[in-house]
Amino acid sequence: MTTPVAAYAAPAPKAPLERTSIERRAVGAYDVLIDIKFAGICHSDIHQAREGWGEAIFPMVPGHEIAGVVAEVGSGVTKYKVGDQVGVGCMVDSCRECDNCKAGQEQYCTGGGMVGTYNAVGKDGEPTYGGYSQKIVVDENFVVRIPDGLSLDVAAPLLCAGITLYSPLKRWGAAPGKKVAILGMGGLGHMGVKIAHALGAEVTVLSQSLRKKDDGLRLGADHYYATSDPKTFEELAGTFDLIVSTVSAPLDFNAYLSLLKSHGALVNVGAPEEPISLNLFSVIGGGKTLAGSMIGGIAETQEMLDFCARHGIGSEIELISADQINEAYERVIASDVRYRFVIDTATI
Amino acid sequence: MTTPVAAYAAPAPKAPLERTSIERRAVGAYDVLIDIKFAGICHSDIHQAREGWGEAIFPMVPGHEIAGVVAEVGSGVTKYKVGDQVGVGCMVDSCRECDNCKAGQEQYCTGGGMVGTYNAVGKDGEPTYGGYSQKIVVDENFVVRIPDGLSLDVAAPLLCAGITLYSPLKRWGAAPGKKVAILGMGGLGHMGVKIAHALGAEVTVLSQSLRKKDDGLRLGADHYYATSDPKTFEELAGTFDLIVSTVSAPLDFNAYLSLLKSHGALVNVGAPEEPISLNLFSVIGGGKTLAGSMIGGIAETQEMLDFCARHGIGSEIELISADQINEAYERVIASDVRYRFVIDTATI
Repeated sequence: MTTPVAAYAAPAPKAPLERTSIERRAVGAYDVLIDIKFAGICHSDIHQAREGWGEAIFPMVPGHEIAGVVAEVGSGVTKYKVGDQVGVGCMVDSCRECDNCKAGQEQYCTGGGMVGTYNAVGKDGEPTYGGYSQKIVVDENFVVRIPDGLSLDVAAPLLCAGITLYSPLKRWGAAPGKKVAILGMGGLGHMGVKIAHALGAEVTVLSQSLRKKDDGLRLGADHYYATSDPKTFEELAGTFDLIVSTVSAPLDFNAYLSLLKSHGALVNVGAPEEPISLNLFSVIGGGKTLAGSMIGGIAETQEMLDFCARHGIGSEIELISADQINEAYERVIASDVRYRFVIDTATI
Repeated sequence: MTTPVAAYAAPAPKAPLERTSIERRAVGAYDVLIDIKFAGICHSDIHQAREGWGEAIFPMVPGHEIAGVVAEVGSGVTKYKVGDQVGVGCMVDSCRECDNCKAGQEQYCTGGGMVGTYNAVGKDGEPTYGGYSQKIVVDENFVVRIPDGLSLDVAAPLLCAGITLYSPLKRWGAAPGKKVAILGMGGLGHMGVKIAHALGAEVTVLSQSLRKKDDGLRLGADHYYATSDPKTFEELAGTFDLIVSTVSAPLDFNAYLSLLKSHGALVNVGAPEEPISLNLFSVIGGGKTLAGSMIGGIAETQEMLDFCARHGIGSEIELISADQINEAYERVIASDVRYRFVIDTATI
């Protein structure tokens, strides 16, 4: 039997979000019922609610940065018990059988693709609804544990923003002795600064202006440069082992590749919607890499949460009530948030 | 005292090459005088002789695929003795002090850049002249040993084409259990097929047509597909761990990236002169990589030659006399060579 749950939903593309009620499925043998405490607002929530990324499913309950407490577990659940602090990120299922799923890269599932936490259709044929709601039912294999040392409010954004940065920083070698640049100082970028610093790298923020410089240095950056200043590109030529770009505005990628050392990598977790223009000689000279990365797998998300707990890393947040969601969307679009809005779901 | 040496040179941009005489420097303490036996013709010889890559130095003696025998050594030379089989590739010097030089990546020297074997200026302020000549004087640190098991004629093209493919195949993990595609079946591509096969990878050739299929399979490819057939892209979607592109014609890079598995890499050793258009979502979905690679360092070039000797790998060549160089250039441009022209320098 399904359970009615209070939620905030966009009833149609570009329509304001409003309070509504959705049905959550009965708790199956391997399911966990989570009392959602906090849900982060990710820019991709807005893209999808406004159909910026193509046709979407409505009504839509966005939210894939979910932190809460286990309220009930199915008979077969072994990983969690009632009262545990848990989180859910961008996916709630995948085929579990393809090479990527078996390798813990469920986000790249080739057996039909991962099932998104919202704006997707689950294996039961029902649409999925995300974290802007009071409860969610998720298979235990797509639930992660939030260590007790982490507060749920600042942990929520780790489920997308945190893993989106952690995964490429680890894969591409952010570590002591390495020079890492984080391009963009927003919801994603500020997590990159914290995580790259905790990984031991020498961290530089490359931001359009120096407006957020104090924050950047406080959060762990060693250096902070404005990309609007052409001298930045002269001074930093050939400097970095790794640049992680969180920017979705069009960029001069040849210029950013010139900031890499030989064998360096520029990894994109943000991307402009339009194709970019790239001179391949920018990667051939110096044996450089232009790569992409999309969130991370479930096991790696758990690893990230454990890492963040050990290092005392949460997101910098502005806590809002549910009736502020629409206003928060406008402020996200205007880059007017330091650095992540988090909804207190008790206010829904 | 300098020594006059017979050579073939382009007297001016786009002018036919003709027989001439150049001066080689006296053999210094750390120099090796090499009797050149064979010199390969690389497409980049033509680009440079015709100033396709910008202003060049004339007269130009091209040739950076040089195989010969040591004729004299300087008093301080320890690595080679008279009679040794040796080779010289794309560079004859570098700063030797920057991080890249110290790491054996002299091709990416940041202390002024590598000194090209021709069309460059040496540390003595004199222009460098390449392999289309009967002798060359090179510092022993930029000379490599050609193992006795390798014939000098088929070894010559290894000094550029061989290392250009070996380096990215090794770096990006061509090995047993890996599916590797070689894009383009020319002078570079045919070396890629041989080396990737010898490294134990499952090798696929992606060529415009099936015209060279028999050759490809004979040289070690397991599969051969025509990229002019749209079905190739459907059938091979998500197949490869690694694609090495040797092509310098414009390509639909988004389509080739779709042939990679998650975390796969498309590495370019050829490149179109015009910027390419790239949708970054082609690398973000699947965590994929678009990279570049340029020849290889001296130590890695030696490693490659030793590897090729162990596996009996040489280039497939058409041996020509010096008076056929101009005709050979036209045939290279028309892709009418299987697979590398090599000049018998005794005919100069």
